[in-house]
Amino acid sequence: MTMTPIQPLHARTGQPLGEPLPTATNAQIDAAVDLAHAAFASWQASDGATRGALLRALAAALEARRDTLVPLADDETALGPVRLNGELDRTAFQLRRFAALAEAGVPFTALDDPAVPGAPPVGHPALQRTRVPLGPVAMFSASNFPFAFSVLGGDTASALAAGCPVVVKAHPGHPRLSLATFELIGQVLQASGLPAGLIVGVLGGVDAGVRLIRHPRIAACAFTGSTRGGAALQAEAQARPRPIPFYGELGSINPVIALPAVLATRGAELATTLAGSITLGCGQFCTSPGVLVLIDGDAAQRAGNDAFVQALGDALRAAQPHPMLTPGMRRAFDTGVAAWWAAGAQPLLNESSSGPAPRPVLAQVDAAGFLQHPALRDEVFGPAALVVRCGSIEQATALLAAVGGSLTVTLWGAETDSADARRLVRAAMAMAGRVLFGGVPTGVAVAAGQQHGGPWPSSTAPMTTSVGDAALDRFLRPVALQDAPAWLMPLHGRV
Amino acid sequence: MTMTPIQPLHARTGQPLGEPLPTATNAQIDAAVDLAHAAFASWQASDGATRGALLRALAAALEARRDTLVPLADDETALGPVRLNGELDRTAFQLRRFAALAEAGVPFTALDDPAVPGAPPVGHPALQRTRVPLGPVAMFSASNFPFAFSVLGGDTASALAAGCPVVVKAHPGHPRLSLATFELIGQVLQASGLPAGLIVGVLGGVDAGVRLIRHPRIAACAFTGSTRGGAALQAEAQARPRPIPFYGELGSINPVIALPAVLATRGAELATTLAGSITLGCGQFCTSPGVLVLIDGDAAQRAGNDAFVQALGDALRAAQPHPMLTPGMRRAFDTGVAAWWAAGAQPLLNESSSGPAPRPVLAQVDAAGFLQHPALRDEVFGPAALVVRCGSIEQATALLAAVGGSLTVTLWGAETDSADARRLVRAAMAMAGRVLFGGVPTGVAVAAGQQHGGPWPSSTAPMTTSVGDAALDRFLRPVALQDAPAWLMPLHGRV
Repeated sequence: MTMTPIQPLHARTGQPLGEPLPTATNAQIDAAVDLAHAAFASWQASDGATRGALLRALAAALEARRDTLVPLADDETALGPVRLNGELDRTAFQLRRFAALAEAGVPFTALDDPAVPGAPPVGHPALQRTRVPLGPVAMFSASNFPFAFSVLGGDTASALAAGCPVVVKAHPGHPRLSLATFELIGQVLQASGLPAGLIVGVLGGVDAGVRLIRHPRIAACAFTGSTRGGAALQAEAQARPRPIPFYGELGSINPVIALPAVLATRGAELATTLAGSITLGCGQFCTSPGVLVLIDGDAAQRAGNDAFVQALGDALRAAQPHPMLTPGMRRAFDTGVAAWWAAGAQPLLNESSSGPAPRPVLAQVDAAGFLQHPALRDEVFGPAALVVRCGSIEQATALLAAVGGSLTVTLWGAETDSADARRLVRAAMAMAGRVLFGGVPTGVAVAAGQQHGGPWPSSTAPMTTSVGDAALDRFLRPVALQDAPAWLMPLHGRV
Repeated sequence: MTMTPIQPLHARTGQPLGEPLPTATNAQIDAAVDLAHAAFASWQASDGATRGALLRALAAALEARRDTLVPLADDETALGPVRLNGELDRTAFQLRRFAALAEAGVPFTALDDPAVPGAPPVGHPALQRTRVPLGPVAMFSASNFPFAFSVLGGDTASALAAGCPVVVKAHPGHPRLSLATFELIGQVLQASGLPAGLIVGVLGGVDAGVRLIRHPRIAACAFTGSTRGGAALQAEAQARPRPIPFYGELGSINPVIALPAVLATRGAELATTLAGSITLGCGQFCTSPGVLVLIDGDAAQRAGNDAFVQALGDALRAAQPHPMLTPGMRRAFDTGVAAWWAAGAQPLLNESSSGPAPRPVLAQVDAAGFLQHPALRDEVFGPAALVVRCGSIEQATALLAAVGGSLTVTLWGAETDSADARRLVRAAMAMAGRVLFGGVPTGVAVAAGQQHGGPWPSSTAPMTTSVGDAALDRFLRPVALQDAPAWLMPLHGRV
C-alpha cells in the first residue's frame, strides 16, 4: 500500500519547506504497536524512579535542543520564538511534574481494606484496591501546541508515568519538528538503556490514525483536536471488537459572562485583556474565549455594555494576529465566520484579509438568535468572538445550557454572594470543566487542581482531565486483589 | 402510541401471575425525566445529612416491608426466601453505606491548590478541584438481583448519594416487586418532604429503555445485564446529539485457574466449593465461574486434574438447581450450551431437562480448541462450566489474554512467590477487575476496596466500579474553580 507523503509547509507563506516526508505504511504502523507492546512487559513493572529518570532525561534533552527545536517549530507553526520557548519550558515542566508523581509513588498507591469477620453484608474478605497500567496508548498530537500537546506533551508524559508505552501519531502540521523530536527520544531511550518501544513515532494522515486506533494491541487513545475529528476517532475506538477508552479533548467556545457592574468600573481594562486573550496565538487555543455574554438589565447597563463592546472592537482592530498554523485552518476560519453571518450575526469588526494571517472578527447577536441558530454555538478556531446580548441572568443561564459543554466558563463580577451569582456559578459548573472568576481562560496551569475537559462537545471523557496531575488516572485501571498472599502485598500490584 | 403490557410470570412454572401490567407511554417516560430534572435543582445542592436521611429511610422501609417484598420477589424469580432475605439485607446495607459516605462529606471533598506566585509554568492561579453531580441518571435494573441491582440497588443508592435523581426502568422479569418498591419509595419521599422526582419508576421493555436513554435531560446511564443488551444501549448513549456516560456491567466468564499442587492437597474440598459456586442461584450471577483452567504439566498432574474434574462432575451431578428467572433465560441457557457442543467441547455432564430448572452442565476442551472457537469464550448464563486443559503456565496466560475481559479471575495455588505465580497474577490483573487468591468469585463484597468491573466485554466502563464505595465517583464530574471568591469556597461547589 502506498501512503501519500507529507509536504512540510512554511506556516508564514504556505510555501513548501524542504522535501516531502514519507509516511508510515500499514506494516510500519503495526510494527510500531508491536514494539510498544513488547516494551509494555517491563515498563508496566518498572518502579517510580525508573519512570521519573526517563521523564527527566526527556525534559533535559528538550531543553538542550531548544536552539534547534524552536526554529523548526516556528517555521512550521508561525507561533513565534517567545511563545514557543515558553511552550517548551511548559513541556519540560510537565515531564518533570509527572516524573515527580511517579517518584512519589502515585501510580502505585493502593487502598487497603482489611478483612472484616462475620457473614456478609457486614463481613467481607481482605481487599486491596490497586491500579494497573492499561497498555500501549495511541497518542494523537495537536497542531496548535507543537510541544506541550504534541510528541512529548502531557498525554505522553502522563501515560509513561502511569506505566504505559506510547505510539505517537505526529501532527502533519509540524512533521519536521516531530521527526527531530522522535530522533531526540531515540537517543534518550538508547542512552538510558530502555526499550525503543516506550515511545514510538509515526508520521501519517487520517488513514494512519485509523489503522493505529484499530490495532488490537492498542489499549487506549489520547487525542487533542477538533470535535469532528475526535468524534470520528472515538467512533473507531468504540467500533473495535474490544472497545477501548478514548480521551478526546475537543473544541470549546469558552463563554465569558461579564456582569454590568464590573464593566462599569473596569470596562476599559477588561476590554484590553479580553482582546488579548481572543487574539493570543491567533486565537488558536482550545480555551480561546469565543462567546461574550452581556446582560442588558436596564438602559444604563445597556449603555455600559455598548461602551464595552466598542472598546473591545477597538482593541481587536488594533491587534495584528500572526499567520495561522496551516492553510487549511486559515480557510476553516473564513468558513466559520461566514457561518456566523449566515446565521444572522451582526458584524461589528469584519475586515477582509486574504493572506495567511487573518484579521480579528467581532460579531453580535441577541439571546434569541443565539438560541435559535446552532451554528452560532460551533467553535470558530481563530481570532473571533461573538457577543451575545441578553436581558437577564435567567437568559444567561439558558445560553450556557444551550452551549451544553465547554472547557471553561469565565464569570466576571461574581465576587460577592448573591442569588444571581449562585445561579450563574451553578449554570457554569453544570457545563464546564473549569470556572474562572477573574482573568481569561487562555493559559491552562499544569497543577494538581487543574481540570481540562468538560461535557460534550468539549471532551469525549469529561470525567477525566488532559492537563494536571489527574491526567495520570486516565491510564490506570482499578483492580481489587481479594485475599492476596503476603508476598504480593508490598508490591502494590507491580508483579 | 400503544405500549405492550407486561405479563408477570410465576418463575417456578412459567405461568401468568396476576393481570398484565400497563407499561409507560412515551409521554409518561418524558414526564418521568422532567420530574427527575425538576428534582435535580434542589438535590444537587442538598447536604450530606439530607441525602443520608433519605437513603437510611429507604433502607428502613425495605426492611419494614420484608414480609411483603420477599414473597413477591420469590414468586417472580424463584430465588428462594433465604437468598432473597439475604439480598434485601445487602441492599439495605448498601443504602446505609452510601448514606454514611454522603454524611461524611465524600461527594463534597475538594482538592485545594493555592496560587503559586510567579510566571507560568511554575506560577499559577488558585485552583480548587471539586466535583458536581451529573444530573438525572437512567438506571436499568437487572433481572438476577431483584433487590441489590434493581430499583433500590447500588446504582440508585450511589447516584442519590452523589446528588443525582434516578429514573429507574424496572426489569420486566419482576414487575410486581418493582411496582411495590416504587410505591414504598413514593411513601418515603412524601414522608420525608422530598420531591417525587428523586426516584421515578418506569415499567417497560426495550422501547421504553431506548426512549429513556435518548432523553436530552438524562445525564448518565447505569445498566446491569447482558453484553448484547448493554452494547446496544451504549451505542444509543453514544449516538445522542450530546453523548453521555454509560456505565454497563455486562457478561463475564470469570476464569478459575487451579494450579496442580493445590488440587493434589485440597482437590476434594475445592471441587465441592466450586460446584457450589457454579450452581449458586442457578448460576445466574455475573460472577459465576464459567471457565476452569487446569495445567497438565506432566502425567502426575494430568492424573490429579482428571481426578479433580471427576469430583467436580460428581458434585455438580448431585446439585439441584432451582428454576431460572425467566423462560427466556431458560431457553438461552440451552442455546448457550448447544453452542459449546457445536464448537467441539466434550460433554462431561449433560443431562437433559425440559422444565424451568436446568440440570448443571460440565464440558471440557483443550487450550487449542478454546483459543480457536470464540463461542467458547461467550458467557453461558446458568449452571454451566467449561474445563480447559492446557500444558503450561504460558498457555494459561494466553487463555486469559484471549478472554480479554472479565469481572474476576480466581487463582488457586499462588500462595508462594514464584516466576509462574507472578506471570499468572500479571495476566489476571491485565484482564480482570478483581483477582481472588482463594474462595470463589460469587459474592461481591460491598466495601471500600471493591472493584466490580473489568475490561470489555465485562464492562463498558472498566475504569469505574458498580459495587463498593467508588461507585459514587461515576456520578460526579470534576470541575476546577479558578480564583474562586471567598463566599464560594466553604460550600465546596454546592451553590
